[in-house]
Amino acid sequence: MAAPSSLDSIISLAKRRGFVFQSGEIYGGSRSAWDYGPLGVELKENIRRQWWQTFVRGRADMVGLDSAIILPKRVWEASGHVATFTDPLVECQVCHHRFRADHLVEDFEAKKGRAPEGGLAEVACPNCGTRGQYTEPQAFSGLMKTYLGPVDNEEGLNYLRPETAQGIFVDFANVLQTTRKKPPFGIGQIGKAFRNEITPGNFIFRTREFEQMEIEYFTPPEEAAAWYERWIADCWGWFTDLGIREENLRRLDVPDGERAHYSAATADIEYRFGFAGGDGWGELMGIANRTDFDLNNHIRESGADLRYFDQATNERYVPYVIEPSFGLTRAMMAFLVDAFAEDEAPNTKGGVDKRTVLRLDRRLAPVKVAVLPLSRNEQLSPVAKQLADELRTRWSIEFDDAGAIGRRYRRQDEIGTPFAVTVDFDTLDDKAVTVRERDTMSQERVGLDRLPGYLAERLQGA
Amino acid sequence: MAAPSSLDSIISLAKRRGFVFQSGEIYGGSRSAWDYGPLGVELKENIRRQWWQTFVRGRADMVGLDSAIILPKRVWEASGHVATFTDPLVECQVCHHRFRADHLVEDFEAKKGRAPEGGLAEVACPNCGTRGQYTEPQAFSGLMKTYLGPVDNEEGLNYLRPETAQGIFVDFANVLQTTRKKPPFGIGQIGKAFRNEITPGNFIFRTREFEQMEIEYFTPPEEAAAWYERWIADCWGWFTDLGIREENLRRLDVPDGERAHYSAATADIEYRFGFAGGDGWGELMGIANRTDFDLNNHIRESGADLRYFDQATNERYVPYVIEPSFGLTRAMMAFLVDAFAEDEAPNTKGGVDKRTVLRLDRRLAPVKVAVLPLSRNEQLSPVAKQLADELRTRWSIEFDDAGAIGRRYRRQDEIGTPFAVTVDFDTLDDKAVTVRERDTMSQERVGLDRLPGYLAERLQGA
Repeated sequence: MAAPSSLDSIISLAKRRGFVFQSGEIYGGSRSAWDYGPLGVELKENIRRQWWQTFVRGRADMVGLDSAIILPKRVWEASGHVATFTDPLVECQVCHHRFRADHLVEDFEAKKGRAPEGGLAEVACPNCGTRGQYTEPQAFSGLMKTYLGPVDNEEGLNYLRPETAQGIFVDFANVLQTTRKKPPFGIGQIGKAFRNEITPGNFIFRTREFEQMEIEYFTPPEEAAAWYERWIADCWGWFTDLGIREENLRRLDVPDGERAHYSAATADIEYRFGFAGGDGWGELMGIANRTDFDLNNHIRESGADLRYFDQATNERYVPYVIEPSFGLTRAMMAFLVDAFAEDEAPNTKGGVDKRTVLRLDRRLAPVKVAVLPLSRNEQLSPVAKQLADELRTRWSIEFDDAGAIGRRYRRQDEIGTPFAVTVDFDTLDDKAVTVRERDTMSQERVGLDRLPGYLAERLQGA
Repeated sequence: MAAPSSLDSIISLAKRRGFVFQSGEIYGGSRSAWDYGPLGVELKENIRRQWWQTFVRGRADMVGLDSAIILPKRVWEASGHVATFTDPLVECQVCHHRFRADHLVEDFEAKKGRAPEGGLAEVACPNCGTRGQYTEPQAFSGLMKTYLGPVDNEEGLNYLRPETAQGIFVDFANVLQTTRKKPPFGIGQIGKAFRNEITPGNFIFRTREFEQMEIEYFTPPEEAAAWYERWIADCWGWFTDLGIREENLRRLDVPDGERAHYSAATADIEYRFGFAGGDGWGELMGIANRTDFDLNNHIRESGADLRYFDQATNERYVPYVIEPSFGLTRAMMAFLVDAFAEDEAPNTKGGVDKRTVLRLDRRLAPVKVAVLPLSRNEQLSPVAKQLADELRTRWSIEFDDAGAIGRRYRRQDEIGTPFAVTVDFDTLDDKAVTVRERDTMSQERVGLDRLPGYLAERLQGA
């Protein structure tokens, strides 16, 4: 099992093998944005597809949506974000850097294991080290601004969405009308959201632009509490079905007074990421009961009738909303942490070597099959390349002919490739290949004619 | 075939059936942003997947990437966008609205069929109607600004990317290092880009936020010209393979003096969208030979060595880049226009009725199979619902039990659903259903046990 201290190894692996790059690294990069390299983009895409199939295409009570990132600014006034989406910031009076007051306290606690008794007076500036020379906290908006039209003035001021949810609420009547769905039903959306994070960090855990996978599930008010519990179970089940171990998940019911302004009940599903400091757990996703707060806001501000007309009872009502909100890249980080393992593999000298292996669910693995000619050879290479080309019409494939075969197995193990197919000299005669499975390292001889079916059976749903 | 005048019918269908909504419609909406509804998001997703499979996963010489939208601003200084990504704007001195000078001229030409002889002096303001009272043109940046960090000043100024390409150039060395690819090879990316369009329009053709599907293909300089032609052919072939008719495509070689600042050669693939005014054609995508312009800029500005070291010749060189650049939503619009048809279908009185049908390629169709109980009935509905649930584990399914069966067929035809499966009273005895094909309207009786295989065979690659 991944010990908390393995987080550094995972980050190092992710960078070394091209899952994640520091964004704009050649220009000095930034702690707050990351790029997803060839393996990362495949892993991320596989998570997206699984989510979409499970929660949107695969359910009779769900439909999808893709709304714009820049919505009319009145949307954010109605939603309460312009007024309340703020953080308290303090400024160090010596170096003039600004920080979130609550993060300064949290970092102190993580380091010292206790709260700062004198409040901020006891806390050193993370930039210049001066102790306690902070201004009073001032509200600072987490919304990212932009300007539309030819001049940068109040009229052109707009915001990048801080959550995908509002696009769903604003289109609620359009969806009702074009799909003829009835509550309980939901709308799912995957897309980027932006927050002006002052203290991003922990790798891809908190970044200023991030991908959300959100569901707004519209229910009759009296059914909301039951659907809230059901959605918590469904979300939990999605992670465990894709391989996350139960012992690394926990439910946190967010107490009164700590919830977002729109929420009547919120449960976080936390994951044991293994962060240094604190207990190593972090929020993986949240499920909130947003009640009729958002639809009512938009009814009031836009004048549109967003009530649902129930033909059975002949009544109009504003549905309640249960919101399961996932972070795509946070989910990716959890899948990586949970899959990371170190064990032993036999070596050619009859002993064992340590190996790193990503035990990713086969549906998530960025490369499904590696095709390896036993050696770089005029006879084997064309056969292996042709096989790789054939398999590539269906799955993500890597062809690798560089180095000893044991080393190439290790390279595939550490990126989580479920199957390695080796083309050897016998292949030229018996038209068969050796298929090695990642976790058990067992090997099986499979005829080339049978290989696509053999793999398809084992890669179902991938 | 879709006549040019059918564009209005297509836009109307797209709105009525939930392919596309006006973004923020309840707040008055905007001409420059659109949301993709339940059918639109599925169609768009299917286009994305086909593109990714054809150009990234399915090719040994390609890998994928997903870079951040907000890159360090030095990237946009190096790329030339901060200096040159500008449009000439004029202001009407009466109403103070601003317009692109070139668009004013184009609109005049489209209306009158000739150029304005007196230049802008002859052109009426689109807002207030005053003729020719314009200021001199001034440069206006098409980059959308945002501010990072706690204060909105020059230090925090950043830009939303106007193209995904630069993220690929900036990560070029990271990709080389982690994948060990050698030129010729390419990097593909799908993601949003943003341009501060002053005169957006033509439905989803030109919008301020849009999704690009871009490839930067790195080649030895001497191979660039050949790869340029090959990529034009490959892109063309992708569209025709997915059903676009050859007669609606044409190649336009962009002449010297009209190309973007980075390009040594550009070919547009144009599509006959059927716009009112002009000849109805518009740019579907472009393929450019960017030479070593971008990599050289980033080498100079960042100081990083972005040359490729060729072990065979023992030389370092800066690769040339061929860039096929697709607009995802523009492609979606072309697929809709090309698929739109009106023909005749038999009615119950022995005559024929007009029908609208989207002849989308099966791989693109947003709904693959409709499941229709012949009538809303206690015996048929549960059987049909169970069948729909089973098929939904694999494909996008619609269940519809509302209205006459002929009307439900029409509803599926106009959204392009390839197969309608009808559950009737015979089904209860013979365990078979009637499968109707969209284009031929032919019907076939298929046993329930054989149905998944029957559909899978006909929906290959979907």
